[in-house]
Amino acid sequence: MSIDALKTRMAELSDLTALGRLAAWDQRTMMPPDGGPGRGEQLATLERLAHERATADEVGEWLDALEDADLDGLDAEIVRVARRDFDRARRVPVDLAAEIERASADGQTVWQAARAAGDFAAFAPSLRRNVELAREYAACFDDAARPYDALLADYDFGLTAARLQEVFGELAAELAPLVAEAPEGAPPVSAPLEAQRLAVPAVLARIGAGDDGWRIDDSAHPFSVGVGRGDSRVTTRYQEGDLLSVIAAMHEFGHALYERQIAPELSRTNLGGGTSMSMHESQSKLWENHVGRHPAFAGVLAEAFAAGGFAVEPAALHASLVAVRPSLIRVSADPVSYPLHIVLRFELELALIEGGLEVPDLPAAWNDGTRRLLGIDVPDDAAGVLQDTHWAAGAFGYFPSYALGCLIAAQLWEALERDLGPQDEALAAGDVTAIRDWLVPAVHAHGRRLDTEPLVEHATGRGMEAGPFLRHARSLVGVV
Amino acid sequence: MSIDALKTRMAELSDLTALGRLAAWDQRTMMPPDGGPGRGEQLATLERLAHERATADEVGEWLDALEDADLDGLDAEIVRVARRDFDRARRVPVDLAAEIERASADGQTVWQAARAAGDFAAFAPSLRRNVELAREYAACFDDAARPYDALLADYDFGLTAARLQEVFGELAAELAPLVAEAPEGAPPVSAPLEAQRLAVPAVLARIGAGDDGWRIDDSAHPFSVGVGRGDSRVTTRYQEGDLLSVIAAMHEFGHALYERQIAPELSRTNLGGGTSMSMHESQSKLWENHVGRHPAFAGVLAEAFAAGGFAVEPAALHASLVAVRPSLIRVSADPVSYPLHIVLRFELELALIEGGLEVPDLPAAWNDGTRRLLGIDVPDDAAGVLQDTHWAAGAFGYFPSYALGCLIAAQLWEALERDLGPQDEALAAGDVTAIRDWLVPAVHAHGRRLDTEPLVEHATGRGMEAGPFLRHARSLVGVV
Repeated sequence: MSIDALKTRMAELSDLTALGRLAAWDQRTMMPPDGGPGRGEQLATLERLAHERATADEVGEWLDALEDADLDGLDAEIVRVARRDFDRARRVPVDLAAEIERASADGQTVWQAARAAGDFAAFAPSLRRNVELAREYAACFDDAARPYDALLADYDFGLTAARLQEVFGELAAELAPLVAEAPEGAPPVSAPLEAQRLAVPAVLARIGAGDDGWRIDDSAHPFSVGVGRGDSRVTTRYQEGDLLSVIAAMHEFGHALYERQIAPELSRTNLGGGTSMSMHESQSKLWENHVGRHPAFAGVLAEAFAAGGFAVEPAALHASLVAVRPSLIRVSADPVSYPLHIVLRFELELALIEGGLEVPDLPAAWNDGTRRLLGIDVPDDAAGVLQDTHWAAGAFGYFPSYALGCLIAAQLWEALERDLGPQDEALAAGDVTAIRDWLVPAVHAHGRRLDTEPLVEHATGRGMEAGPFLRHARSLVGVV
Repeated sequence: MSIDALKTRMAELSDLTALGRLAAWDQRTMMPPDGGPGRGEQLATLERLAHERATADEVGEWLDALEDADLDGLDAEIVRVARRDFDRARRVPVDLAAEIERASADGQTVWQAARAAGDFAAFAPSLRRNVELAREYAACFDDAARPYDALLADYDFGLTAARLQEVFGELAAELAPLVAEAPEGAPPVSAPLEAQRLAVPAVLARIGAGDDGWRIDDSAHPFSVGVGRGDSRVTTRYQEGDLLSVIAAMHEFGHALYERQIAPELSRTNLGGGTSMSMHESQSKLWENHVGRHPAFAGVLAEAFAAGGFAVEPAALHASLVAVRPSLIRVSADPVSYPLHIVLRFELELALIEGGLEVPDLPAAWNDGTRRLLGIDVPDDAAGVLQDTHWAAGAFGYFPSYALGCLIAAQLWEALERDLGPQDEALAAGDVTAIRDWLVPAVHAHGRRLDTEPLVEHATGRGMEAGPFLRHARSLVGVV
């Protein structure tokens, strides 16, 4: 039976993905440094094999045979999404895919040196090559209305440049003035490292990361993986001078919880993952912004730090976590101005891909945009256009998910409080059971059955919109 | 080119093996308990896929095309061993392999309950089924002189039942009386757990396990894996009452060092692993018995414990590590009487497979053999015939490697001291560089190019023999 063969293949691919995640997690947390070259080979082999098995001729034959089959609900969904993934993967010639991969690797190498030297001109040829290849890639999808839509579809199937321009336009128009007018933020609270190390597992245990199904480890950059049902792993980074270890851990918890609460019957199918980059980011942002930065939750955080020997007033802690301080660097941006960094990048990469902007003109455009959106002058390209690795890696269409995550999280939070009532009391008590449970039917259970915007509509009754985030931002800066 | 295609496939299989080892390591050291079922699926998928890719028709076509090819030395060896592995794997019908796997899983489940209840009769039907299937499996290899030889070939290609009867016969004839006459051993030295935890990495660092290429972790049963070149991982177990944590860690270091010192050009080929179970065990036993239990090395061990706050006299430490105390249980046997446990198991499984012994008669035969070889009465089957999992898993032909490892280690040690001179001074100084280096051309570099006995001959100038171990055993019990 073709459906059985297809489902067996999907289960295999799901297992290979899990093994790849494990190997990548290990590489970043446990592997001795000398294991690096070998691990690179192992991951490349796994990826090649998974791609070969996903795009093999027999998969196309099974899908063809199932074209008019009378399938029950779940099987029909499995076939629908498998057909889509298969067709997309087969549209890209093998040579082009290999060339993109090479250019991506080269681009990142060149970028690292160029960033260190603050030398955009040294990076420009690699960037131009990546842009050209992204356009070639986009041209493989003649069903996309615009080239950028084809790129976006790899991260957020169903979204379009037009839709993003609409939502981000509304966002920037109100958020840029709000940031410009925000009062000076409270000074950062800095907990000793040892208190942070005790607080992270304590806070995660409070919100649901128990020992039997979770790990918490260190890594240079925080990340999370679901290695399989019942095996969720988050990492964080400890540094003096801020409380990012706890906030990052809550962010990663949100990602991991999403994968973990997908309906069990989707496990080991092609529907058993988060549906898109932006929905995934909305889950991390919900726990980071709406739980971790909620004024009522500050007492729980303060208590966790106190248990580690660091006394801090909840109000001071909260003020520190929501302070607005427009900055040059995206990754250290405050929660209010953060999406403006993304709007800038979206505008620029859209213009690069669709032809309105040439690579040599990019730094000036970057600097203009930073002044316009964030009110800051960029002193040099290292702190400007060279700060992120995404374009060096050829990843165009990736950035929007960071801002969409903020927007969708705020929209979900409003829907959640509409359904459950205000969460202040529960958060003050550190009880997030209702929040976790609400997310299951609203978002998590569906896996990849619904794409981003249909899922947002299912959960909130409305399409994606900027309003909820803007209301959240105003509450954070005290302009309600 | 068929040779390129073959080598690419071998590299792929090597990478899949490494990923499987990593996943198994993680399962036993890091994985949260709830990850168990998912990990089982992932490992099964990986094994199925690797088997499919190893035995695919195209591999046979490449090998056929290479039959009369003029290949250089290494390529010719790759093809020779690939042909052998392929032919062996293809001889076993898929249905029989699946049936063996099922019976193995069932057997282990039944055995666990039977052992807990001390009820051999409850285990007998599963064991009988495993024996029948092992005979069927052996019958697939009509080139084997005896059924047992076909089973042995999976662990130690080229060895035969006849050769083992010869070597083990000589061993038992002298070792059994030696054990019977050994003076009462010194009492066990017991270090506090914290001192053991500090001593293990200190001792391993002294013998060559540096941070950049090694990890040391905890697990319920000590083991080691090489995840790739430059990524060696050993585990050990800490318990009050003995010094097994350090000895087990040195044992696992020996396994890991073997894989690590294989010639780099064999990396990611089908020759890039240890050549057999018994050669592997010889490498662990060399570090366990001939370094760890060497009188001159006791000072290094004592120093490591002292740094952890536990003072012990080197002489007392050494006496404790070599004390002879014949016991019922193989896994806690002393280093002198240990091989007798294996001789017993070899004799019995040979008779089971080749028909001289029926399953219902096994407990009586076990108890007789234990009395004859170790001079001990077996009080019940739980402490006797039910103690090991191997037969429950259908692994016949596996046990001999444990004793052969002891024998080959002693033989290698004599050759090493003949080549390098006595190692007492170097060991007293904790300097094992010469030992590590000697092992490279003698054993490690060859990977799977030489099978067990040819490799022993290469390293020592003689075939496998019992004499060196017997001399070592006499020196341990003070009967020189």
